[in-house]
Amino acid sequence: MSKVKEFNEYRLRMNKTILEGDNKVIKRLFSVDTMAYDPGALSSKTKEMLGLVSSLVLRCDDCVKYHLEKCCQIGTSDAEIHEVFSIAMLVGGSIVIPHVRRAVEFWNELNKIE
Amino acid sequence: MSKVKEFNEYRLRMNKTILEGDNKVIKRLFSVDTMAYDPGALSSKTKEMLGLVSSLVLRCDDCVKYHLEKCCQIGTSDAEIHEVFSIAMLVGGSIVIPHVRRAVEFWNELNKIE
Amino acid sequence: MSKVKEFNEYRLRMNKTILEGDNKVIKRLFSVDTMAYDPGALSSKTKEMLGLVSSLVLRCDDCVKYHLEKCCQIGTSDAEIHEVFSIAMLVGGSIVIPHVRRAVEFWNELNKIE
Amino acid sequence: MSKVKEFNEYRLRMNKTILEGDNKVIKRLFSVDTMAYDPGALSSKTKEMLGLVSSLVLRCDDCVKYHLEKCCQIGTSDAEIHEVFSIAMLVGGSIVIPHVRRAVEFWNELNKIE
Amino acid sequence: MSKVKEFNEYRLRMNKTILEGDNKVIKRLFSVDTMAYDPGALSSKTKEMLGLVSSLVLRCDDCVKYHLEKCCQIGTSDAEIHEVFSIAMLVGGSIVIPHVRRAVEFWNELNKIE
Amino acid sequence: MSKVKEFNEYRLRMNKTILEGDNKVIKRLFSVDTMAYDPGALSSKTKEMLGLVSSLVLRCDDCVKYHLEKCCQIGTSDAEIHEVFSIAMLVGGSIVIPHVRRAVEFWNELNKIE
Repeated sequence: MSKVKEFNEYRLRMNKTILEGDNKVIKRLFSVDTMAYDPGALSSKTKEMLGLVSSLVLRCDDCVKYHLEKCCQIGTSDAEIHEVFSIAMLVGGSIVIPHVRRAVEFWNELNKIE
Repeated sequence: MSKVKEFNEYRLRMNKTILEGDNKVIKRLFSVDTMAYDPGALSSKTKEMLGLVSSLVLRCDDCVKYHLEKCCQIGTSDAEIHEVFSIAMLVGGSIVIPHVRRAVEFWNELNKIE
Repeated sequence: MSKVKEFNEYRLRMNKTILEGDNKVIKRLFSVDTMAYDPGALSSKTKEMLGLVSSLVLRCDDCVKYHLEKCCQIGTSDAEIHEVFSIAMLVGGSIVIPHVRRAVEFWNELNKIE
Repeated sequence: MSKVKEFNEYRLRMNKTILEGDNKVIKRLFSVDTMAYDPGALSSKTKEMLGLVSSLVLRCDDCVKYHLEKCCQIGTSDAEIHEVFSIAMLVGGSIVIPHVRRAVEFWNELNKIE
Repeated sequence: MSKVKEFNEYRLRMNKTILEGDNKVIKRLFSVDTMAYDPGALSSKTKEMLGLVSSLVLRCDDCVKYHLEKCCQIGTSDAEIHEVFSIAMLVGGSIVIPHVRRAVEFWNELNKIE
Repeated sequence: MSKVKEFNEYRLRMNKTILEGDNKVIKRLFSVDTMAYDPGALSSKTKEMLGLVSSLVLRCDDCVKYHLEKCCQIGTSDAEIHEVFSIAMLVGGSIVIPHVRRAVEFWNELNKIE
């Protein structure tokens, strides 16, 4: 569990530090970031998968972890997650593979906890 | 209609030219590309939206057009497409906006035809 | 002048179309986008140059044009603009050069109008 | 022939305009750019293919065209070029495909002229 | 202080190793890299902020650290740095956020030392 | 030797985990990935250098390591590797430098083992 916990603690602590900088633009961007994944015409689950695939093709490990955790909480199956990975690898190429390795590892840790 | 038609004609003609090069790796990649969007644990519609958002954040206009056309054929509402756009803009930043401009234009043309 | 005018007309028309989609996240992102370049601890001119260099290294021609126009309106010298270009080319590499070609062309058109 | 000619004329004209800006950093970068493809431990042909594949995965059409022309002048076979394309598509993913379409078209035009 | 020191020691040691490879192109690129941030039409401070925002949108943590250190040495306020961060996040999207987290952490360490 | 060994063990272990997910698209992509570097019109050595330069400009450390190891096994000289680095740095810009630092370190470790 430690990897998941460690990731979340660092993220929350540094987000707090960033927001203490009291920059209006940054604050607004953080609040839009939360709002964007609220259910609307698309479900939260679909939106989290959209966030996940975008993070994978842009190769941002921390963003991938964040969306994997949300996907796990909402209830996304292994097969669904692998299909998201497959599209990321297809669209983004073999450079996405190392990020998928770390994503699979984190996904398995998340599912051990639940 | 001409923009949609022109786009498709160029794409199909050049894909044919690429495949005539008879490179085994390229042929396999083209065939995996088709297979990846087949329905599985996720529906074709969800997969096309995953392809669309990936193309937007990676800022590939032609890929965006391709997935918009698929989304249109499968039946995706304006509100759903705008939510895909919103996540692409959030994750990928304001540099995605010019691509969303061209995407909206193409989307509207696709819907005029139908 | 036509290139500058054409660019602006398309941008404004399509921004309007995007906003008519009435997506709350997109609307917020557009409004933050405007706010970010307001003078604060840094002047608008410095901020526009920051926007310009970011657009160049991310290789978004339309974003480059937008910030060049702002830089021109605020009063930025040729030498200053070339120094922004030089840092973009250094940080982003030779793939930035084709975008600098189009940027110089647009910059010269902007300055002819003024 | 017009597409190749047009590309070269624009490139040369705008490079001249950029260099007239008389920025020392830009001048140095242009001169290193030429030097980098001179034969050394690796042949010019290998280096041009390295430049080509880099341009493809970074998806810069103008850079792709430039290196294709060099590869054509040096003498690179269709099969070799397709293998460069295949690695670009594998490493960079399906978003590279639209750039390969335009690359194949330009490559065929270059070979018609010779 | 250890994080800053460790970063600098590794950077200097490996730069030395790279230059020992005695490649002419690499040597020139290193020397242009230094020259580009010298004051000219723009001040060193503005240029370092341009380098910082470019590194953030291209998401290179080591480059970010390098420019943060320069910004700190030259004298850049917290509010100014946060405005650079805000533009990076706006232009580059939410995938820039994890890099801003690490940047804020490094910035705070730099300022503790001074 | 530990860094090289550690890298390979993690890569092989996680590739196995990914493939156990039994996703057809992912399996095909893994098998095309292997095939692409087989000798054809171009030698394996040239193809590995193409893979290396692509990985460098796309800034994927793990992909860089993988291709460096292959280049080492096939027999690539220090001078050749530095020329690949030089083109990557030229095309991809100074943001590639931190990745070249780690690449040189790994390359030297690989050569100590042999």
